[in-house]
Amino acid sequence: MKQISVGIAGLGTVAQGVLELLAANRDLIRQRSGVEVNVVRVASRRAKPEVDLLGADFSTNVMDLLSDQRVDVVVELIGGERLAKELIVGATAAGKAVVTANKAVIALHGNDLSQQHLRYEAAVAGAIPIIQALQKGLVGNRFSGLSGIINGTCNYMLSAMEDEGVGFDDILQRAQALGYAEADPTFDVDGIDAAHKLTILMALAFGTGFEFPKVYIEGIRAITPVDIGYAAELGYRIKHLGILRNTAVGIEARVHPALVLQSELVANVNGVLNAVQVVSDAAGKPLFSGPGAGGAATASAVVADIVAWAEGAATSATTTSAVPVLSIEQVSSSYYLRIPSRNEPGVFAEVAQILSSYDISIDAVIQKDGHEQGDLVDIVLLTQEILEARMNQAATELQALASVTGEVMRIRVAPQD
Amino acid sequence: MKQISVGIAGLGTVAQGVLELLAANRDLIRQRSGVEVNVVRVASRRAKPEVDLLGADFSTNVMDLLSDQRVDVVVELIGGERLAKELIVGATAAGKAVVTANKAVIALHGNDLSQQHLRYEAAVAGAIPIIQALQKGLVGNRFSGLSGIINGTCNYMLSAMEDEGVGFDDILQRAQALGYAEADPTFDVDGIDAAHKLTILMALAFGTGFEFPKVYIEGIRAITPVDIGYAAELGYRIKHLGILRNTAVGIEARVHPALVLQSELVANVNGVLNAVQVVSDAAGKPLFSGPGAGGAATASAVVADIVAWAEGAATSATTTSAVPVLSIEQVSSSYYLRIPSRNEPGVFAEVAQILSSYDISIDAVIQKDGHEQGDLVDIVLLTQEILEARMNQAATELQALASVTGEVMRIRVAPQD
Repeated sequence: MKQISVGIAGLGTVAQGVLELLAANRDLIRQRSGVEVNVVRVASRRAKPEVDLLGADFSTNVMDLLSDQRVDVVVELIGGERLAKELIVGATAAGKAVVTANKAVIALHGNDLSQQHLRYEAAVAGAIPIIQALQKGLVGNRFSGLSGIINGTCNYMLSAMEDEGVGFDDILQRAQALGYAEADPTFDVDGIDAAHKLTILMALAFGTGFEFPKVYIEGIRAITPVDIGYAAELGYRIKHLGILRNTAVGIEARVHPALVLQSELVANVNGVLNAVQVVSDAAGKPLFSGPGAGGAATASAVVADIVAWAEGAATSATTTSAVPVLSIEQVSSSYYLRIPSRNEPGVFAEVAQILSSYDISIDAVIQKDGHEQGDLVDIVLLTQEILEARMNQAATELQALASVTGEVMRIRVAPQD
Repeated sequence: MKQISVGIAGLGTVAQGVLELLAANRDLIRQRSGVEVNVVRVASRRAKPEVDLLGADFSTNVMDLLSDQRVDVVVELIGGERLAKELIVGATAAGKAVVTANKAVIALHGNDLSQQHLRYEAAVAGAIPIIQALQKGLVGNRFSGLSGIINGTCNYMLSAMEDEGVGFDDILQRAQALGYAEADPTFDVDGIDAAHKLTILMALAFGTGFEFPKVYIEGIRAITPVDIGYAAELGYRIKHLGILRNTAVGIEARVHPALVLQSELVANVNGVLNAVQVVSDAAGKPLFSGPGAGGAATASAVVADIVAWAEGAATSATTTSAVPVLSIEQVSSSYYLRIPSRNEPGVFAEVAQILSSYDISIDAVIQKDGHEQGDLVDIVLLTQEILEARMNQAATELQALASVTGEVMRIRVAPQD
């Protein structure tokens, strides 16, 4: 029987989930892995008398975990950046292993942290063992890309907007009422949370190190039920994706709404679920889906990391590759364009002329009465793949047309490979 | 740098895939894991001069791998049962570790093999690291069920039957032409291959040991495009599933066609892909999908297992639980029933009367002109959950009705939990 002594920092939802899971399934964990997990100390600013600490000592100062000689593994579940980083650095300096669910601290400070003392399965896609899959299960594969629904709030909101034809603001209110979105929803709906996770996935899949500032980030505030409807007519769903691609000129790393073919499995991952699909040379395109957040689901990943430390499982090097990360202007995409226009002869010809002048080919067109007034139309297009920089120029010209009556809407189409 | 020396038994598609993957991605594997995989001997009855053995010695007798002192890990890729078992037993007796892709040998002889010397990720669902997920990533979870598309041939055939409205025999011919089905398709289409895999999943998820004879097995030969069409009208797809459920009275272990709600992610896994969905207490219902067969995909799992040996990763105990495995008569399901009948007044009343007499409630009904003749109808029903033994009795009475003109078709509905 391997014994491992754990100190838990934090007593929020995830920490409580870890304590509950260890209480409920201790025997099962022991039978499966031969590992006995002992929680020896819990540290949190505030005691919560209602939480069963499984006999652990309690401190109000998380730094007490570092001086507790019994603690083999510090489980960092306080969130935030400054104190969490200090705790992790202190723990590794004290020769302790660390488990964390803190995506921000890894994405923003991962390059300063001792990777061989650190596990963070819970930081990406909650219950889904995607880090383990990249590092172990798919260790023999060269990855050419990855795309994932890695923010459950955005996926819930887009799914609900599609199902009910309701706009962003209404759905946000409901998501907040259901606890799927924070009072300040910025982190989720503006894509920052997803970009933290994508930063970690990029480091693991492509050995770039943790390069959060190089990830292009766009949220879902601009998405309307009208666009969701047109996308459906064209055979697509709109999903908020994190996308990585290893191209001949560098690595694409981008978080934005994207059109996904309805027939793709990832298009059918709805509600608060997460999913990550990897594009690999040997294993094809495996997809992993499951709950991306929540106390119990995140605790599942934390417990797996604790057991992995007890088993002496190797951590993997995040090799540093010299491959550059591309700016969004260097990325090529197909685009969905919605151009609100006057319903006049010749407007479509003007649009087509501008696109043609930038060598942008059109794959599909819908022209519909606009959703605002009868004398307006929405010209909706799918383009072939074109460099973003070039599309920016074309879009500027389209926007300047006298017959264009509103903002030109642009949504990238997810890569097909 | 950890060195590991490998001896490969077999030189078929998977073995060639392993050699190719090691040749292509050796540097990447070394960077990620710090492991250098050296193939020192390949053994196969027939040499294949066109295959690059990466400098390994060649033997025509697979038992030579046991006497080669350099070999740390024997990779068993010869398939079959007798010789494969002999090789595995010999290798573990010689203190060597084993990696195998051979589901039959594990499912049928797993209880006789030394589990702590054995890895077999490639034996279930090819490229999908499902064994690793059950044993490591989800180690903290109590599983209440599992359901999976674990035979790509069946899934390809059912998907094609749905897409094209074509019958079993036509699609089987095409699957054979495409290499998705063997000349003798029995193993796949009669569910035996899926039952091998389910046996392994049951041992890992529920600690039952390897109890292949206790798995209920039914293939897809009886499924018709007519049933696929009615199922679609009712909101379902027909998938060939392996199902495990941990109930109050024992474990259900069954392989059969099943109706799956179209909105479920697993219903949208089409073509030759596999998928396994686990029902767990903490991690919810994670789903893992990907290619279930093919040289490269299977090689991906084999290479992961080799690297795991090199890293000294723990194997997990398959604990022996005292929980009984239920017979199919002890299983409760909802059922799809198609009752070919004369188009006469009172027939439906007779059917309803019989079901009612067995306390079988009806959830949905379609009555359609039969697909054969105008004076026939198909009475199509979905029932509520009922014990199989009881449904058997009701079905016997239904079949005996004078107004029933053909065989009553019964397909179980997949559990909703």
